[in-house]
Amino acid sequence: MPKEKISISVIKRLPRYRRYLGELLKQNIAKISSKELAEMMKLTASQIRQDLNCFGGFGQQGYGYNVKALYDEISKILGLDKKYKTILIGAGNLGRALTLHFDFEDAGFELIGIFDANYKEIGDINGIKVYNMEELEKFCEINHPTVAILCIPKCNAKEVADLLIDCGIKGFWNFSQKEFALDNSDIAVENVHLSDSMMTLSYRVNEIMSKNSETDE
Amino acid sequence: MPKEKISISVIKRLPRYRRYLGELLKQNIAKISSKELAEMMKLTASQIRQDLNCFGGFGQQGYGYNVKALYDEISKILGLDKKYKTILIGAGNLGRALTLHFDFEDAGFELIGIFDANYKEIGDINGIKVYNMEELEKFCEINHPTVAILCIPKCNAKEVADLLIDCGIKGFWNFSQKEFALDNSDIAVENVHLSDSMMTLSYRVNEIMSKNSETDE
Repeated sequence: MPKEKISISVIKRLPRYRRYLGELLKQNIAKISSKELAEMMKLTASQIRQDLNCFGGFGQQGYGYNVKALYDEISKILGLDKKYKTILIGAGNLGRALTLHFDFEDAGFELIGIFDANYKEIGDINGIKVYNMEELEKFCEINHPTVAILCIPKCNAKEVADLLIDCGIKGFWNFSQKEFALDNSDIAVENVHLSDSMMTLSYRVNEIMSKNSETDE
Repeated sequence: MPKEKISISVIKRLPRYRRYLGELLKQNIAKISSKELAEMMKLTASQIRQDLNCFGGFGQQGYGYNVKALYDEISKILGLDKKYKTILIGAGNLGRALTLHFDFEDAGFELIGIFDANYKEIGDINGIKVYNMEELEKFCEINHPTVAILCIPKCNAKEVADLLIDCGIKGFWNFSQKEFALDNSDIAVENVHLSDSMMTLSYRVNEIMSKNSETDE
């Protein structure tokens, strides 16, 4: 892995490169030029070269990128080979949907337990055990999870996060709608705000509808 | 609404401003300086002034921003007053989770129907009727929805999207994991890739864990 720091905006673009490269691999395509990749991804070739040059010269002049090598290197940079032990807090619909449908392993995580405050008896979702929140501290002492996914209401989020930090959690995937930034730089928080994405859509639909109604006049 | 075009990167930041301003309103805070807002949001005051000046001078020197006026203006710019009629395709766990927990109205949408290919009988989720996909075209003729939320598998996404465009859909909130960009600029697509967000978290956790292990040595 390169020692120099890659900017977070480049990092945030890497999963998208990896998705497109993954599709190419499935189609048995071994190499691709920055121009072809740019067309697929609706980017400019120079943006792609700039992004991918951040972590070493994969592209060879007149050859393009080796799809498999680039895919593997991006996976490694993202730490997807580490398979960090992960717990999920909150077994409501969203927690269930993630447990059933999200490919944790592909994203670099191993889901090892689910916790819910209202869960009376031990059960499971998709083969992952569900525990009552009372069992959390004991479970963490034994299993040492690194990451927690918060699928709990806004009002409890900060309190639960503090408890989890005491239990050794180093990263949060936060769906609680309560954005929190921690002063502790040794803890990573990735806030997911689905409503932000939908409001961006609202803006764009609004633009289209206004344009259409102007044309109709 | 201002006539000059606001860049999409500013638009994407507006929902976050709106969330913080909404929290301030709940606390009955009437005005805030760019410096105070910057501290809350972990941004710089100059970034905030630059973003918010895009659509008119809300800040007054020595007074700060009027929280309510700014909140309302951002809502209006995002088109949240329009309440576009919306349908959801795919009544699996993710579709159910969104129907039950997502605040569509706050995000500028009105959910009026749910469609599923495997749904045999009319039912409802959270008071919203679920129909079989066969009813889609008739429903759209009568009710004229503007937006569709795709909670369907990757393999069907493009085909279903084409059908929906024929039915008059102008915007997609796409959870299908199949990213699609349409050549038609009169259709808006907002792709949601939860795995991109989790891979970004993986990178940051990996950084923290590597740093910790270096310190331990």
